[in-house]
Amino acid sequence: MEHEKTPDAKGTWVGYRPDIKILDCTIRDGGLVNDHRHEDAFVKAVYDANVAAGVDYMEMGYKADKKLYSQDLFGAWKHCDEDDIRRIVGDRGGENDTPLKLCAMADAERTDYKNDIIPKDKSVLEAIRVATYIHQIPVALDMVKDAHDKGYETMMQLMAVSVVQERELSEALDEIAKCAVSAIYIVDSFGALYSEQVRDLVKIYARALDGTGKEVGFHAHNNQQLAYANTIEALVVGASRVDATMCGMGRGAGNCPLELLVGFLHNPKFRLRPILKCVQDSLVPLREKLDWGPSIPYMITGQLNRHPRSAIAMRAGPDPDGYVAFYDEMVEEE
Amino acid sequence: MEHEKTPDAKGTWVGYRPDIKILDCTIRDGGLVNDHRHEDAFVKAVYDANVAAGVDYMEMGYKADKKLYSQDLFGAWKHCDEDDIRRIVGDRGGENDTPLKLCAMADAERTDYKNDIIPKDKSVLEAIRVATYIHQIPVALDMVKDAHDKGYETMMQLMAVSVVQERELSEALDEIAKCAVSAIYIVDSFGALYSEQVRDLVKIYARALDGTGKEVGFHAHNNQQLAYANTIEALVVGASRVDATMCGMGRGAGNCPLELLVGFLHNPKFRLRPILKCVQDSLVPLREKLDWGPSIPYMITGQLNRHPRSAIAMRAGPDPDGYVAFYDEMVEEE
Repeated sequence: MEHEKTPDAKGTWVGYRPDIKILDCTIRDGGLVNDHRHEDAFVKAVYDANVAAGVDYMEMGYKADKKLYSQDLFGAWKHCDEDDIRRIVGDRGGENDTPLKLCAMADAERTDYKNDIIPKDKSVLEAIRVATYIHQIPVALDMVKDAHDKGYETMMQLMAVSVVQERELSEALDEIAKCAVSAIYIVDSFGALYSEQVRDLVKIYARALDGTGKEVGFHAHNNQQLAYANTIEALVVGASRVDATMCGMGRGAGNCPLELLVGFLHNPKFRLRPILKCVQDSLVPLREKLDWGPSIPYMITGQLNRHPRSAIAMRAGPDPDGYVAFYDEMVEEE
Repeated sequence: MEHEKTPDAKGTWVGYRPDIKILDCTIRDGGLVNDHRHEDAFVKAVYDANVAAGVDYMEMGYKADKKLYSQDLFGAWKHCDEDDIRRIVGDRGGENDTPLKLCAMADAERTDYKNDIIPKDKSVLEAIRVATYIHQIPVALDMVKDAHDKGYETMMQLMAVSVVQERELSEALDEIAKCAVSAIYIVDSFGALYSEQVRDLVKIYARALDGTGKEVGFHAHNNQQLAYANTIEALVVGASRVDATMCGMGRGAGNCPLELLVGFLHNPKFRLRPILKCVQDSLVPLREKLDWGPSIPYMITGQLNRHPRSAIAMRAGPDPDGYVAFYDEMVEEE
C-alpha cells in the first residue's frame, strides 16, 4: 500500500513546521459575545495560559473609535486603552516581558487610528491587525501605513472572503502585496467555506504574495463545524498564520478551538495542558452564561453563505431552537 | 485566477453525484447513549423524517444475542425483534412501503446470527451490516454469507481502522473483496483520523475493491470535530456510502450530523427541512437528558488515537469538566 502526499503539502506527517504561528483571539472575538465586557481575571487567565502554552500572539480586542462606540455601551476590550492592557500584564510592572506578542484589531472606518494608535515605543502592543471589507481596502492600506510608520508589525484581515468576486480579490491582493503587512489572513466571516475552497484560496493568496516575504493566514468560523478542519487544511497547503480561541469562544458559532489546533500540531513549542486548564477553570463557567458555538441557525446561515447576524438575533430571542421557522424565513429571503 | 480540482475528485463543485447513499444511524449509534431504550415515538419521528428527507437507509439498532445482552438490561433496539420494528412502521400495516431501506447491525461474536436473523422474505429489514474488528474477519465473513443466503443486502463495517496495521488491512480487504457485501465502510471508531488519512484510506479501499462493484463507505466520530469534515473528504475522493445521525447523536462525541451532510449535498433527492423539524421536536428535548457530542475528554482520546471508553466514563462521573486531571491520566498511561 502506498501513501500519497497531499499535492503541494507543506511539511510532512511526522515532522513539524517551525514557521507556524498561532494567534489567540479569545478576548477579541469572544468580546463580540458580551460587548467586550470581560472581567480582568478572565483576560489575565487567558494571557497567562497563552504564555504558558507557547502561543505566538494574543489579540486583546479592538481599537474602536470612542466617538462611534461609547465607553458606556461597551467593555474595555472594545477600545484597548493602554492602561487597560497594562493592568493585565501588571504584575510584571505593566510590561509584557514574555515571548507572547500582544496585538489589537483596528476595523477600517471604525477606528480613529491617527489618534488612538500611539507610537509603538509607548505601547505594550507589538502588532496591529487591520480588518477590512473589500471595498474599504484604500482606508485599510492607509491604516497599515500609519501603524507601520509608528513602529508596529502590521497584518491584514480581509473579511467575508466567501462573497468576494475573484477579480476584486485579485486586484486587492496586488495592492496588499505592496504594503507593509507581514501577513494577510483569509477570513471566513460567514463560516461558509468548504475545504476545497480553503485550499484554492490559500494557493491564490500565496501566489499573489510570492516573493514578498508576506505570509498567508486563516481565520475560521465554526458555523458548519468546519473551523478546525479548514484551519488544518489551510496549514497543510501552506498557510502559516492561524487564528484560534479557547473553547472556540467567538461570535455566533465561534472559532477554531485552540485546544484542537495545539493538539494537532506536533510542534514542541506549543503545550496543550495550560490551555486545558484555562478552558476548565475559566471558559466552562462562562459557557453557562454566554451562548456561542455551533448550532443549527448558524449552520443555516453558513450553508447559505450569509452573515450570521440573523442567527445571532434568533439565538438571543424567545425561541432559540425554532429551527424550522428560521429555515423557512432564511430560504424565503433568498 | 485558476481553480484546481482536488486530485482524483469524483464529481464537480456544482453538480451532484447520484451514487451517494446516506445511512441514518441515529437510532443504532444513538442507542449506545441510552442502552437502546428509545421511546417508540422517538424512533417513529426519526423514521418519518428519514422517509420525508429522502435518506436511503435507516439503521434500527443491533441484532445482539439475548444470551449475552439481556432484554432486562437493554431496550428493544439492542435486539431489533421483528415485532418491535413493525410496531414503528405500524400505521402502514407493519410493512415499510417507502423507499427508505431498513437495516440492522450485527456485531461479530455478539450475534446469534444463525437463529436471530430470519429469512429476508419474513422480515421488514432489507439489509444487514456486519460490524467487525480486524481479528474477527473470519466470523464476519460467515455472517455475511449467512445473511446474503437469507436474501439480505449485506454491508461490512471494519471498525477501529485507525489502529489497524497496513499489512493486516490489505489482507482483510482482499478477503472482503471476494464476499457478498455491497459496501465496506471505513470506520473511524476513535474519531482519530485526519483528512489526509481519510483520503489515503478511501483510495486504498477503492483500489482493493476495484472491479468488484462494491462501494466504499465512511462512518465518522466527532471526537476532534472532524466527523462532518472527514465525511465530505471521503465523498470527494470517491466514497459513495456515508453514515450520519440527526444532531450528531451517537456514542461519546457522536457522529457526522445528518443536517450538515444533507445541507452540503446538492442532490435534489435529499431534503433538509424534515430533518430540521425532527431535530427541533425530538432531538433537542433528548439532549437535555443525555450527554453526547464533542467535548474535551473525547478530543483527548481522539488525539491519542484511543477508544473513547475512558472519556465516556469520565463524562458520566462526578467531574465531567475536570479536563486537566483526565489529560494527566491519559498521557501518563501512554
